[in-house]
Order: sequence, then C-alpha cells, then structure tokens
Amino acid sequence: MDIRQYIETKRRLVDSALERYLFPEDKTLLAEHFKAMRYSVFAGGKRVRPILCLAAAESVKDFSNGFPEAILRTACALECIHTYSLIHDDLPAMDDDTLRRGKPTNHMVFGEAGAILAGDSLLTHAFDLLSRDMPDAPPAHDRLTIISLISKAAGPEGMVGGQFLDLTHEGKEVHYNMLREIHSRKTGALITASVQAGAVLGSSSPQQFKALSRYGIQIGLAFQIIDDLLNVEGTEKQLGKAAGSDAVRNKATYPALFGVDKTRKKAQEAVQEALATLDGFDERAAMLRDLAQYIISRKR
Amino acid sequence: MDIRQYIETKRRLVDSALERYLFPEDKTLLAEHFKAMRYSVFAGGKRVRPILCLAAAESVKDFSNGFPEAILRTACALECIHTYSLIHDDLPAMDDDTLRRGKPTNHMVFGEAGAILAGDSLLTHAFDLLSRDMPDAPPAHDRLTIISLISKAAGPEGMVGGQFLDLTHEGKEVHYNMLREIHSRKTGALITASVQAGAVLGSSSPQQFKALSRYGIQIGLAFQIIDDLLNVEGTEKQLGKAAGSDAVRNKATYPALFGVDKTRKKAQEAVQEALATLDGFDERAAMLRDLAQYIISRKR
Repeated sequence: MDIRQYIETKRRLVDSALERYLFPEDKTLLAEHFKAMRYSVFAGGKRVRPILCLAAAESVKDFSNGFPEAILRTACALECIHTYSLIHDDLPAMDDDTLRRGKPTNHMVFGEAGAILAGDSLLTHAFDLLSRDMPDAPPAHDRLTIISLISKAAGPEGMVGGQFLDLTHEGKEVHYNMLREIHSRKTGALITASVQAGAVLGSSSPQQFKALSRYGIQIGLAFQIIDDLLNVEGTEKQLGKAAGSDAVRNKATYPALFGVDKTRKKAQEAVQEALATLDGFDERAAMLRDLAQYIISRKR
Repeated sequence: MDIRQYIETKRRLVDSALERYLFPEDKTLLAEHFKAMRYSVFAGGKRVRPILCLAAAESVKDFSNGFPEAILRTACALECIHTYSLIHDDLPAMDDDTLRRGKPTNHMVFGEAGAILAGDSLLTHAFDLLSRDMPDAPPAHDRLTIISLISKAAGPEGMVGGQFLDLTHEGKEVHYNMLREIHSRKTGALITASVQAGAVLGSSSPQQFKALSRYGIQIGLAFQIIDDLLNVEGTEKQLGKAAGSDAVRNKATYPALFGVDKTRKKAQEAVQEALATLDGFDERAAMLRDLAQYIISRKR
C-alpha cells in the first residue's frame, strides 16, 4: 500500500473512532462543553500520534482483520492528549495564538475559561479511554504499562515540562542542548510513547519494544525539526497558522541555530537512524519505514 | 481512636507520601515548575479525599500493619487531582481568586502560564502514580478499575463538567435541580470516587462496594452543603479565602436557596443517609462513621 493511502485510511479510522469516543453535542446540559472539546479534536489534525501507534502495533502483529477496540481507544486517547496540549498552548497566557490549522483557536471561540476546561476534559477523558472496561481488552498489566508510559510522556517531566521550558526560554539565547531538551520533552516524548503504546498493543518482544522506542525517539526528533523548518519556509495558507511566528516570538528552533540546509540534513539523519532501528523487522514494518520517509517530505 | 487523632495521623501519612511522590525542587531544569506544583499541594489542604480513600479501604480490610504503597499512591493521586482543580478554578479566566487557604493563589505566585502548567502536570502525574509498576501492587484489573472510576469522576461528565456548569450559571437564577447537578459533579464525583477507590483497594465485595458508593455520594453532598454554609458564616481567617465570596459572585448555594437553618438540616440528613449505608459494616467502619459526623462539625 502507498503511504499516502495508508495514512488516509488510518486517518479515517481514527476520525470515526474519535467520533464515537467523544461526547455528542446535543441534548445535554454540557453540550457547549462537549462542543468545545470536539471543536479542536475535529479541527483537521493530521493524527500523527494515533497513526504511529497503529503502525507500530502492525509492525509486530497482524491486524489485517481489523484493530480491536482497545487499540483504537489508545490511538484516540493519544489524540485527545495532543489536542488538549494545543488548546492550552494557544491560550493568551501561553503562546497567545489566534489561529490553529486555519481556524480560530479554541479560546477565540469558547472563551478562555471554556478552552481551559475543554483541555482539562480532553486530558482526563484520555485516561478514561485507556482504562475503561471492555470486551477483548488486552491483558490488564499491558494496559497499565501503556497508561504509565503515556502519563509519564505527557506529564511534568515530559510534554508539560517541555512547554514550561519553551515558555521560560522565549527571547533568551538557547544553546543546542537546551533546544534538544525542549523538543524531546515537548514533542518527542508523546510521539515516542505513541509508538511504544503500539508496540505493547502488538505484544512486542522486549527487543522489539526497545527498537521501536528508539524509532519513536528519532521519528519525534525528525518531526519536530521539520516542524521548525515549515514554520520558517511554509506559507500561512499551508500551515494554517501564522508562518514565521517562531521567529517573531524569538523561539529556539533548528533553522535559527543551524540555518535551513543544515537543519534539513539533521532531519534526514534522524530519519536514517529511525530506519536503522527497524533492521531486524520484517515486511510488517514497511509502513513504519515509509512513515519515517514521509515525515520529511510533508508540507504541513 | 478519636476521629481528630485519626484524621491527624492520616493527614501526616498522606503528607509524607506526597513529599515522596512529588518531584524535588532542586537540581533540575524544571525546578520552578516542580515548585509551582508543590506550592499548591503543600498549601495546607485538609486531605479529605485521601483520608476518605484510606478510611474506606480500612472499613473492609485490616491495614493496621500499614498501607501498601499502592494505596498511598492512590490517595496522593486523588489529592493531586483535587489540587489541580483548585489551581485552574482560581485562574483569572475562571473564579479569579487571589487567596486560597490563606495564601496567594498559584497564579499570583507563578503567573498564569505557570499555574495552568502546574495544574496540567498535577493532573497528568496523578495517572502516573495510579499506573506505575511497583512491588506488592494490587491486581492489575483492580488498578484499571480505579483509574477508570477516577478519570470518569474528574472528567467532562464529572468534576470538569461541574465547574463548567458552575461558571455558566453564575449570576443566573438556579433551581434546586441544577444546584444538585453542579454540586454532585463538581465536588461529589471525586469524593465518591475516593471512597470507591478505597473500597476496591480493600478488596470489597460487590455489596460493600455498592454501599460505600452510596456512602460516598451522601458524604460528598454533606461536604458541599457545609462548604456553602461556611462560605456564608465563616470568617475570612477561618476559611483562608474571602468569606461571602459566593454571594458576591451570585453563585448558586444551599444557603441562598434554603436559608441557613434548612441548609444545616439538609447536611444532617445527608450524614444520616451516609451512616445508614454502613449498617451492614462491622467495627472496621467506625472511622468512616465518625468521619461522616465530623464533616458536619468542621469549621474550615
């Protein structure tokens, strides 16, 4: 299967699962709150983390007959956490962004309080999705492992910590070590956890889990480097947010530190390293390999 | 044991566990972020939810030789979630409170962004505490049940939903049904889940779990009614926050709807119902019974 086709198929699968796992907007006291949650979840996200989770699971186990509910729930939980982080990052007290994926940010539509609460609910709901009792669930111990991996990656030493460092280093001179620190926490950690969760759901062997973890780290790095590049090179239309906003805000980025050419090279190196970690994998890892290549070629 | 002594002993136990389970403030890039998390956790909370969790566990099983790590972690996770909710509720975009428990609120000290992130981290860290691998852990399935109960209680249909309703009904005429709706979600749900988590950790029978769930609902109701009363009657010094602030904000409360005397009577009824649910329990439920009585007599 062509990688674009694969991504599109998985994106639809994730979208329809998200549709089921989020609360309907009608006939409830909380309709407006649920609407705020849905608004950002269905604002055109690329579903990178859920797709990586599914592809990682498929790289170690055959799911051609369909993914069990638990895997879809995990994929959706990852997207809920990612979405919450975007909502909170966009807040006036944080990055103060008014556009995201070409649409007004959550707080522009639902107000600051509404956006804070929508984020809080998406984060909490993710753990409901990860823990809820269901038929055909994977072993309880594996599910706990996944919750542990994801909560660590999203928490104070992971994603939130990364956003904290990012905010506190705005406008300051940032060295390469700090740039890596910020990126690996803010973006890398949850991407790595997405791949790891998929590995656990595919019942990976300890060696496979280790290799996929390393793949996740490199792919997270490549993803963030390209994100930095797109922010410099992309047009507002392609990005759906203000292009060059990092530079305006004097944020630490790869292009600011290394220039465009060397930055692109660094992304390619990360992808090569990601591919190398899959050396011991068979044909089932084909999509994971193609995804690594795809991440560098993306335009948004 | 006298109930005040019991509460004090358990409070200390919880405080020292929280000390272990929160990140140290020194020698890290994230020191300031960890400090913001600790600031509100150690701002003099009563530890109501952790204590109810421990007491519920003790009501069905003997822990006189000490609580296993998993129970303490669960108790601390509940306090982390409660604390995050206070930090976010106090934000300028929400209740805009400057004092909490007699101290400046989190955002007054760490700024709005710092407070939002401290809350996000405490919420996420709670699920890390609930899922982390450890020796002597309870059965994985029980731990998943607890995560599920807590995430539902704290999430969009529970605590966050309650805060949403509370905010959106400020300044509006609120009928009794809506008041109950707001209270049961905003405060009741997490208190009930605290008792339920304790029940699961004490390996309760299905009947015991059901009874303790009902106990949790009634105790949560009594707690909130007394909270409303204290807000009217208490002095700023006793409460550590602006007394009468609910009235100023035109918030829906029991005293506003029923007057002080009838409100007190309603709290007593809830406590009586809570006690009735424990009819089939033996002496091990003594502290749970005393806690119910204590909740009405509290002055802060």
